[in-house]
Amino acid sequence: MIAVRTIAELRSEVRRLRQEADQQSGRAEVGFVPTMGYLHEGHASLMRQAKEQCAVTVLSIFVNPIQFGPNEDLAQYPRDEERDLKLAASLGIDIVFLPSPEEMYPQPTKTTKTTIHVREVTERLCGASRPGHFDGVTTVVAKLFHIVKPDRAYFGMKDAQQVAVIQQMVADLNFDVTIVPCPIVREADGLALSSRNVYLSGEEREQALGLSRSLRMAEEWLGQEPGLTAEEVKSRIRQVIGEAPLADIDYIDILTFPALQALPSDEPVGHAGSDVLIALAVRFGRTRLIDNRLFSRQGGRLCSVK
Amino acid sequence: MIAVRTIAELRSEVRRLRQEADQQSGRAEVGFVPTMGYLHEGHASLMRQAKEQCAVTVLSIFVNPIQFGPNEDLAQYPRDEERDLKLAASLGIDIVFLPSPEEMYPQPTKTTKTTIHVREVTERLCGASRPGHFDGVTTVVAKLFHIVKPDRAYFGMKDAQQVAVIQQMVADLNFDVTIVPCPIVREADGLALSSRNVYLSGEEREQALGLSRSLRMAEEWLGQEPGLTAEEVKSRIRQVIGEAPLADIDYIDILTFPALQALPSDEPVGHAGSDVLIALAVRFGRTRLIDNRLFSRQGGRLCSVK
Repeated sequence: MIAVRTIAELRSEVRRLRQEADQQSGRAEVGFVPTMGYLHEGHASLMRQAKEQCAVTVLSIFVNPIQFGPNEDLAQYPRDEERDLKLAASLGIDIVFLPSPEEMYPQPTKTTKTTIHVREVTERLCGASRPGHFDGVTTVVAKLFHIVKPDRAYFGMKDAQQVAVIQQMVADLNFDVTIVPCPIVREADGLALSSRNVYLSGEEREQALGLSRSLRMAEEWLGQEPGLTAEEVKSRIRQVIGEAPLADIDYIDILTFPALQALPSDEPVGHAGSDVLIALAVRFGRTRLIDNRLFSRQGGRLCSVK
Repeated sequence: MIAVRTIAELRSEVRRLRQEADQQSGRAEVGFVPTMGYLHEGHASLMRQAKEQCAVTVLSIFVNPIQFGPNEDLAQYPRDEERDLKLAASLGIDIVFLPSPEEMYPQPTKTTKTTIHVREVTERLCGASRPGHFDGVTTVVAKLFHIVKPDRAYFGMKDAQQVAVIQQMVADLNFDVTIVPCPIVREADGLALSSRNVYLSGEEREQALGLSRSLRMAEEWLGQEPGLTAEEVKSRIRQVIGEAPLADIDYIDILTFPALQALPSDEPVGHAGSDVLIALAVRFGRTRLIDNRLFSRQGGRLCSVK
């Protein structure tokens, strides 16, 4: 495994490994896993899938300043480069790209005059709670795609809106890359893996189980009572999560996927003409957690996508 | 020469010709000339330079709807596909890409949810006169770059702000493409070539010579009186152009290049610490013409860039 910190080195290493792979096997696909580091089993699942499908695998670790709001946790975002590199090596990743903020946003401005905006898909859920967040995400992902030039890029469905936004950008701007969404990885007790889980106190972590529990219950409700409206389901989820005294609900929403449009509030969720996403964001102290469940229509019924 | 109308065909032809060139000569650079068609000698100069520098050359002809404002000349924009194809063939272009609006902006929305915005560089000159214009330009250029994947792309300095905006986008988003700005091509009498010149009546065309004349005079003034301020130069240019009764001045501006920042209004233009652009936009009837002259610092003096 090679670790590089500059764009020029990354480009040259990807080119070299791609050529080698092409000569050795006629397979030269580059798989890319962009992350903010502090890797967990969720990231590992992305890297494993990249490794299975691609001849050359690139992991990036970059805590992207422009996707954090002024009152968010940029400075506190957890980091452990040494452990991340060990994990990547153990999974057989070929190249790890660890640029500095200055390498990605050079002097003198340390930022970018150019930004990419995706409208509509960014307007609800985390886009509404975190203004500017998705412009930061799409802009850095476009930069990384131009640097790495992957054939496939792997994103976790934990950030379902991020997947929808990036797929929209890729389609609209004709990026020649396939986005591979990968399932949420959970702890045995249901908590969705997140680098931010490390911030939780024991009590907060216990109460945070309400997120995944309420989503499992929503699956049961929709299976047994397909006539439930989005408002009814949201209100029940609110009740389950609200049982935890430390939970401060940011949003609970039920939207079409991947367009992320509202369902008519008085129509049964089971009648939706597309896939349906139930998505949550809840604060515990200063830690904001997200979770979601995607339902797709199978044989006239909405079924949870595993 | 091959003419293709779909993105899929274009991608496959570029891939094929790049491989062939690589096998034959070890040179596989792709040169790209994006245009809106109705080609003239200005476009021909871009194609010739692409041909000189690159093994494979691609011309695109696409009148991009999203860079036109609601009251602009999209429907009237001149077109002559047959003549354009003959010119491209005569210059040895390998592939011409002629997508339909639906190919570039598919159903059902016929537009894009994703846009690229470059701030600061777009805020003056044509960016101020044509709100949204440069978002349309950067978005379509990014799409075309992702489709064609050129190593070099050729743009005329007639649209000096467009060159500055695209160079900023390419740098900020780490596009792996070299932007090659090419000199303005003029008629024998000085009129800068433009597809829109065809709209001009004989009288308008005669009076439009004030644009290039005033820029030549500005070069003389700055050579003889380096202490002139931007305000003084602008006012003299305004007087020269204003002699034409049909001229309706949109803007006359003097800015740093490529940042396109204002010069201090009371400081001599000759003291500018960077290259300086004098840029004009003038309407004759319903036709809006632009012209400019770039000055660079050589041996302590500002000299016109030929």
